[in-house]
Amino acid sequence: MQQSIIPMRSQVTVTGGFWAQRQQLNRAVTIHSVYDRFVETGRFEAFNVNWQEGMPNRPHIFWDSDVAKWLESAAYIIEKTGDEDLTKIVDGVIDLIEAHQWDDGYFNICYTLFEPEDRFTARMNHELYCAGHLMEAAVAYHYATGKDKFLRLMCRYADLIEKAFVTEGWAEFKTPGHEEIELALVKLWKATGEERYLKLSKHFIDTRGTDDGELDLYTQSHKPVREQDEAVGHCVRALYLYCGMADVAAATNDDELLAAAERLFDSVTNQKMYITGGVGQTSTGEAFAPAYDLPDASSYCETCAAIALALFAWRLSAIRPDRKFADAAERTLYNGVLSGMSLDGKSFFYANANEVDLIGKNQPMESRNHPFYPDTRRVEVFGCSCCPPNATRIVELIGEMAYSYNDGAVWVHHFASSAADFGGKGLTVETDYPHDGRVRLTVKGDFTLALRLPGWCESYTLNKPAELKADGYLYLPVKDGDMIEYDMAMPVRFTQANPLVRQHAGRVAVERGPFVFCAEGLDNPLPLRGLILDLNGKAEITTDETLGVERLVLDGFVRPASDRLYAPLSKERLPQKITLIPYYAYANRAETDMLIWFNAE
Amino acid sequence: MQQSIIPMRSQVTVTGGFWAQRQQLNRAVTIHSVYDRFVETGRFEAFNVNWQEGMPNRPHIFWDSDVAKWLESAAYIIEKTGDEDLTKIVDGVIDLIEAHQWDDGYFNICYTLFEPEDRFTARMNHELYCAGHLMEAAVAYHYATGKDKFLRLMCRYADLIEKAFVTEGWAEFKTPGHEEIELALVKLWKATGEERYLKLSKHFIDTRGTDDGELDLYTQSHKPVREQDEAVGHCVRALYLYCGMADVAAATNDDELLAAAERLFDSVTNQKMYITGGVGQTSTGEAFAPAYDLPDASSYCETCAAIALALFAWRLSAIRPDRKFADAAERTLYNGVLSGMSLDGKSFFYANANEVDLIGKNQPMESRNHPFYPDTRRVEVFGCSCCPPNATRIVELIGEMAYSYNDGAVWVHHFASSAADFGGKGLTVETDYPHDGRVRLTVKGDFTLALRLPGWCESYTLNKPAELKADGYLYLPVKDGDMIEYDMAMPVRFTQANPLVRQHAGRVAVERGPFVFCAEGLDNPLPLRGLILDLNGKAEITTDETLGVERLVLDGFVRPASDRLYAPLSKERLPQKITLIPYYAYANRAETDMLIWFNAE
Repeated sequence: MQQSIIPMRSQVTVTGGFWAQRQQLNRAVTIHSVYDRFVETGRFEAFNVNWQEGMPNRPHIFWDSDVAKWLESAAYIIEKTGDEDLTKIVDGVIDLIEAHQWDDGYFNICYTLFEPEDRFTARMNHELYCAGHLMEAAVAYHYATGKDKFLRLMCRYADLIEKAFVTEGWAEFKTPGHEEIELALVKLWKATGEERYLKLSKHFIDTRGTDDGELDLYTQSHKPVREQDEAVGHCVRALYLYCGMADVAAATNDDELLAAAERLFDSVTNQKMYITGGVGQTSTGEAFAPAYDLPDASSYCETCAAIALALFAWRLSAIRPDRKFADAAERTLYNGVLSGMSLDGKSFFYANANEVDLIGKNQPMESRNHPFYPDTRRVEVFGCSCCPPNATRIVELIGEMAYSYNDGAVWVHHFASSAADFGGKGLTVETDYPHDGRVRLTVKGDFTLALRLPGWCESYTLNKPAELKADGYLYLPVKDGDMIEYDMAMPVRFTQANPLVRQHAGRVAVERGPFVFCAEGLDNPLPLRGLILDLNGKAEITTDETLGVERLVLDGFVRPASDRLYAPLSKERLPQKITLIPYYAYANRAETDMLIWFNAE
Repeated sequence: MQQSIIPMRSQVTVTGGFWAQRQQLNRAVTIHSVYDRFVETGRFEAFNVNWQEGMPNRPHIFWDSDVAKWLESAAYIIEKTGDEDLTKIVDGVIDLIEAHQWDDGYFNICYTLFEPEDRFTARMNHELYCAGHLMEAAVAYHYATGKDKFLRLMCRYADLIEKAFVTEGWAEFKTPGHEEIELALVKLWKATGEERYLKLSKHFIDTRGTDDGELDLYTQSHKPVREQDEAVGHCVRALYLYCGMADVAAATNDDELLAAAERLFDSVTNQKMYITGGVGQTSTGEAFAPAYDLPDASSYCETCAAIALALFAWRLSAIRPDRKFADAAERTLYNGVLSGMSLDGKSFFYANANEVDLIGKNQPMESRNHPFYPDTRRVEVFGCSCCPPNATRIVELIGEMAYSYNDGAVWVHHFASSAADFGGKGLTVETDYPHDGRVRLTVKGDFTLALRLPGWCESYTLNKPAELKADGYLYLPVKDGDMIEYDMAMPVRFTQANPLVRQHAGRVAVERGPFVFCAEGLDNPLPLRGLILDLNGKAEITTDETLGVERLVLDGFVRPASDRLYAPLSKERLPQKITLIPYYAYANRAETDMLIWFNAE
């Protein structure tokens, strides 16, 4: 059933423009900043597995995975740059893993230190989650360098997991409390050709929701995954599971499993996703909430969850191209994912607000309108610091996410200046996307080119005849040397939410291209909810020089100040320019109010 | 400075119409229902002061006041009806109070039972609050029956309090943690002529906020009351304090104190009051929150707080007539007070919602958008059941609230069919208010009649020349036998909130006369926030036969259903009649959504 495959990292290079800048920042600043914070907090030191009571920085159960995601990110960078300093660090960590791996293949810092006799007994303790991230890192490093030590170590670990959970069955739970290993095992299978790893992944997926002792919504274990049709529980867990489901469905031609994954994708993106592509409507449980319930000021929208949604949509795009997948990936990449990283590349949001209301947030905890408000100042490292190294890896993956291909065709899912070479066929792409909708593609080889027409794009030009298929892609035959000129009109758009979203009834969001825009209190009069967009007004597209991002200045109104709390409805309005910046750039100056959904007339 | 005085209960009788029906219901059903619930829960039995470990219904520190407010309500009814059953009950309780009052005048059930040595040591234990309510009841019963036993008992208690807190000074705190005794002592002074009680009230008021050990916002003790200009802390405490401040200011010609009371009135009604007249923006602390912060679904709006606001505004109306006082009293009486009582007179709300969102409310506690949602089903008795007997007494006071008078004038603050006789001058009023704005007043004697022109009324007719003064009253000289025809136009009105109220930006409320209207889910499609009022549409005024209340059917729209979560802004609308009932009648059928603030076009 798989229509196309995802490129290898070696096949695509981002060459310029928006994402090249983000990758430069990632390589020059973020990867080092996250490393420094992880060194300071003892996360790297922990791999010496010699922590003792009285020493600082007691290792935490998540730490293996924090460093693993950093290692994976470093591998991606090393593959592109050959960075020797990063290589030295990674090799050092691999040596420590080798040194402290058990004879039977087990590796986990906390269990080894604190309760070696208890391994594989506590479902909620993130053991297999950490294992999965280490496997992902090992596969990435193998592809990046050709070295295979890390990969072999992780194969030994996977072999042990197979024994503990399947062939010998002595593990005391059936499925991991935090999914991740499912998708990692598929990567391990692809990197090694060892079918047992794919089977083990499928085992974890098919076992989930079938054991009486492990039934809960929080971990998507309330029923067998093939029967699930609503996204529930912890968002990152859910979306990592769905990635694994898509991977196994594609690898095993399992239509039923793919259908379940697609149903869950629709549940997320048609009912539970913020306009930013953020997911996680409630802080408690970091979880999905009921359909169409999208409170803004108390949104959770963990950066990792947005990343996980992009990873899930990416997989589906390749299996069965439909623009709804890449549309969702684009929405979350340019908004809910990037919002998690500061513009200087050094600090992060764990939870991402969809509205900042400082009057409400700055109340004492006991008199807040909401039990939870996301941070309004970015920070460099969190106690639970899963998001920063997840951010460093997603930024590196944009090239691979942009394309998929098969024997006869290349799909362009995302638009970035880049060079792609899939053997006999390839593309060189030049564009100022997402600031401009013009994309020039130079063709190498003869094949069918499939260009995504984004769901938001209402008008485009293309210099060759093409067929717009029901999947939302423009299909055209191309020949070696062809120059394709594709221009997606990118006006400022007003967007409404589904009428069932109570929180956004009567309100309007502003988008341009893939960007969702927001107003910050620094640029506009308070309260921001008092701003009224003029639906018939002009929109000026400029640049915010301080932030170095797009800025929109829209016509609008405010109501005149009043000394009455309640008064007869008045149509009196004062003109008010409304200044917007891309959502992802919010909270990069001072702490201030922020709004996405506006009143409009 | 006092321009007019409040009538005695004997001087005004409600003779028909809206409030006569409410009083009939109160006398036929509510007073007995509350009594039955208080008997069942041991509140009356507690006055035997013989509870022992192992017996059911352990007395609670608030119970003296629960029964006291019931006694006060019963006294008001007895004064009008001579009800012998009620009289017997009241006399029985008075006998028990006499039997268990200490030799030195002290009376408190819990302290007598559980820790007699600790009396007057714990500021937050409601001793003086209970004492105040007993004093109010004693005064009411004295006026109602001419009997003076209860009054004498309470004077003895007041004498002890004077000793403990002033002349001997052995009480271990300075001011009560829950205000109430301040206004009660003024009543006791008026009923007995004993100046010491007025002085004691003034002592408590002037001492508040001056003792280092007792400074807190919750009890309005953060600074001296004369310096306060923002309503803060527990709403009922605050508003009972403000009542006492107004009473003492009037009794002692204290302009500074009156100015403080008026500033606090403005703080409440210009910045912190829901359109229903409800107050209490946050459940924690049952408290005022920042200005203009008026969350609807999580509003607290305790029924007692709305009643307290009406009592406070009532006092100010008489001291210095300004329609803003009676406007606020009217707003809260017809909306936030009445909403606390079911239409069948048997059940109550303690907290009153300003929006019901069952999707949000019915989430497990840990994934709610708000930490608190008010009840959506009325109940007959609460653990802390202050509101029901407060409701029974406020309904009895409408006649006295409707008027004030002095030597030369009568002010009409509220409109109800009634007969008022202030010695040489009086009025007979016939009206269908609040359903109709026509009021016919027949004059007895020669005086200046001052008719309130409600702030909401934009057009009226009056069959005699009158001067509309800056205070918002129409002043006209009247003579014995005059028939005054006053007709306030009462169209359906659209109302907006101050632009600083973030929650209501871009939204519109519907009012008619003194009523605020709401939509219930039983009558309208969900989500209610998806309803769009047609600002140019028609309004049909009918009757809801099931509820026996006014019903409005307004033209409006809904947006068509969509399978897209985000879509280009569309002006497509479907016609949708919007059915509204008065807010006070909400939650009298099944549990259902409710909305006051609508989108509109």
